[in-house]
Amino acid sequence: MTEQSIPAARTPEAPANAARGEAVGVSRRTLLGTAGATGLVLGAAGGAIGRATAPAQATPLTSVGSDRAMFHGKHQPGITEGLQACGHLVAFDLAAGAGRAEAAALLRRWSATAERLMAGEPAPHDDTAVARDAGPSSLTVTFGFGHDFFSRTGLEKQRPTALDPLPAFSSDRLDKARSDGHLFVQIGANDALVAFHALRAIQKDAGSAARVRWQVNGFNRTPGATAHPMTARNLMGQIDGTGNPKPTDAAFEQQIFVPASGEPAWMAHGSYAVVRRIRMLLDDWEKLSTAAQEQVIGRRKADGAPLTGGGETSPMELDKTDARGEYVIPLTAHARITRPDKNGGAAMLRRPFSYHDGFDADGTPDAGLLFVCWQADPLRGFVPVQRKLDRGDALSRFIRHEASALFAVPGGASKGEYVGQRLLEG
Amino acid sequence: MTEQSIPAARTPEAPANAARGEAVGVSRRTLLGTAGATGLVLGAAGGAIGRATAPAQATPLTSVGSDRAMFHGKHQPGITEGLQACGHLVAFDLAAGAGRAEAAALLRRWSATAERLMAGEPAPHDDTAVARDAGPSSLTVTFGFGHDFFSRTGLEKQRPTALDPLPAFSSDRLDKARSDGHLFVQIGANDALVAFHALRAIQKDAGSAARVRWQVNGFNRTPGATAHPMTARNLMGQIDGTGNPKPTDAAFEQQIFVPASGEPAWMAHGSYAVVRRIRMLLDDWEKLSTAAQEQVIGRRKADGAPLTGGGETSPMELDKTDARGEYVIPLTAHARITRPDKNGGAAMLRRPFSYHDGFDADGTPDAGLLFVCWQADPLRGFVPVQRKLDRGDALSRFIRHEASALFAVPGGASKGEYVGQRLLEG
Repeated sequence: MTEQSIPAARTPEAPANAARGEAVGVSRRTLLGTAGATGLVLGAAGGAIGRATAPAQATPLTSVGSDRAMFHGKHQPGITEGLQACGHLVAFDLAAGAGRAEAAALLRRWSATAERLMAGEPAPHDDTAVARDAGPSSLTVTFGFGHDFFSRTGLEKQRPTALDPLPAFSSDRLDKARSDGHLFVQIGANDALVAFHALRAIQKDAGSAARVRWQVNGFNRTPGATAHPMTARNLMGQIDGTGNPKPTDAAFEQQIFVPASGEPAWMAHGSYAVVRRIRMLLDDWEKLSTAAQEQVIGRRKADGAPLTGGGETSPMELDKTDARGEYVIPLTAHARITRPDKNGGAAMLRRPFSYHDGFDADGTPDAGLLFVCWQADPLRGFVPVQRKLDRGDALSRFIRHEASALFAVPGGASKGEYVGQRLLEG
Repeated sequence: MTEQSIPAARTPEAPANAARGEAVGVSRRTLLGTAGATGLVLGAAGGAIGRATAPAQATPLTSVGSDRAMFHGKHQPGITEGLQACGHLVAFDLAAGAGRAEAAALLRRWSATAERLMAGEPAPHDDTAVARDAGPSSLTVTFGFGHDFFSRTGLEKQRPTALDPLPAFSSDRLDKARSDGHLFVQIGANDALVAFHALRAIQKDAGSAARVRWQVNGFNRTPGATAHPMTARNLMGQIDGTGNPKPTDAAFEQQIFVPASGEPAWMAHGSYAVVRRIRMLLDDWEKLSTAAQEQVIGRRKADGAPLTGGGETSPMELDKTDARGEYVIPLTAHARITRPDKNGGAAMLRRPFSYHDGFDADGTPDAGLLFVCWQADPLRGFVPVQRKLDRGDALSRFIRHEASALFAVPGGASKGEYVGQRLLEG
């Protein structure tokens, strides 16, 4: 995935160009220049404060709108990119009667749509215009296959063993209706209308071949909302994601992606996504003092630094004890249990969204984390870490895993290819 | 409401300063300068594309984060400001046993919280830290009173006649559980965590005095996602809000706000908010061709221009006919029916959010518009316009009003005062 900032805003001219298969990139300079030269100004959508909803002052297209992720590549998009402000996770089940041929046609349609939308162009068919005028806004669309997809399509022999069902964990309270699924689509963007536009296009592409099994909306911080150098915060107010492997790590590629020679062959350069809807029991959590919360996590709430000192990325001093001889970072602390260096080389790349689906009737927030993690092998990523958490994590009292899914996410499509083609036409 | 761009990010130092009632403004230059000088870089939350979730490159605090709306003023915030990317609308009912004294104490708590959070400071009590590190992000918090608030608090004589229940409309399919309410809070911000943080603080402030009756999440375009000068699009892909009154209009103040000499006295400089959850029947809508959609609306989908030509803000040529003698803008067109100049001076300021609460079991999107409109008198704003729409709007076949509420939103609080004090201590 190469970094790009090719502003391709959906302009009235885009459909015609795009129909001929041409790029519709418009240089950022051009867009800004046009706005300035003609005195055109942005209206309500600009969201600048202190202005009425009538057009008042120009808010130029910024990198928020113009940043663009590439659809084609070694890996699918939506894995190593930075967190996006808006997300949709959606699982589809194949419709009765739909098999391998229908699935292949669907993945072909989906890939064509994803390629177009990620470039800031309209959908290939029946575009709803919801994203019109906007830039690509860092849109990514990522596709995967669930365990039961393979029997439904006569492709049992191609099912990776890595898709074997996850073990049960004692803290699971899983809703099957919101778990699993034949097909997985992850949509992320820095603009909510761009993300919804993509979700709707993907749903319409499914046509009679597949129907939505479950779908959840998520969010992260808007780019530019903070100047602080820290990793994202979650809805517990905690810095979350500090220990994530980095692309500059020597082992990053092999930890996160299936090697070129991996099994099955169609998963070369792919990855496995574990998706968990983790409700946060915020009423309980927020009753704790900050000091008590820090004992649960093992890190300072303010800046994510280990309780043994330093900054967010300082190593934990796991053997350090206090005056009473107690470990400064408790044995049950979440950060201690999940520390990557004690997982035998296991690693996963966490790339979550927060979610908030309102309140239960008694006022309890239905909110938490749409945990999404990526790894070359779930048995060397999510599973061993979750097993350890299951045994002794102080945080488990404050969270509840309500849904779970595991998907095989194939490598990226080359030009002219669609995602999953090596499986479906292999 | 004056335009401000005082970057007051929630820093670790903020709580102490804020407890002394001091401003915690940190100049934008300082924040950026610090980041640059120390080589600190932004992590995953920056959302820049093509970067992994590990810290990689600085994304400076932009106006998205640093823009700030003022809590104190003639009017409450959240009425004339530009649309915000994220919103929560929430209604509370007073708890059994809670009356005027408890309501007064609650509005005092809420006002203190709103003032702090809008300045980018932590909540006065038990801050969850969810918005920590972020700038104010254009946060606004707006409070209102519903019809039944007044009998519950012994304030019947202070109930404005403008709060009389809205008439029933033939297209209403209202869910009472998601309608009305004693107290209304509108939260808007350009960052989802800042908005959630405020929602949670407001809910916790309610304590045992009031409980959530209904709550919905909404969204608009992220600032910087588009360079185009048009008004916002809605989930039908339509430009929405073109005819909105402008603060520069001579009649704006009198159309939108209760005059200083208005009745009741405590509503001076206040406004009335009509809130409607309007589901869009997108499956039906999207079956229409663009041309057919344009006949329903009376405007071009691409740019919002009237079908009689020009640009978005060009006047409609209502008498213009085509070769067959038919009106170019049909008699049933939504834009014709809602045109402000034929409403006898009636006007309302529409300031909506889009919403998407997933899909029904059959795949139908539960999505549409959280219509919020502001006016000095609902009988000269929403009601006459909706009556006309009820009789002949071609759009009515594609939308469904599923919830409705009307609130009296008092004028802004002066320093040292809380919102609604003139009612509750009058």
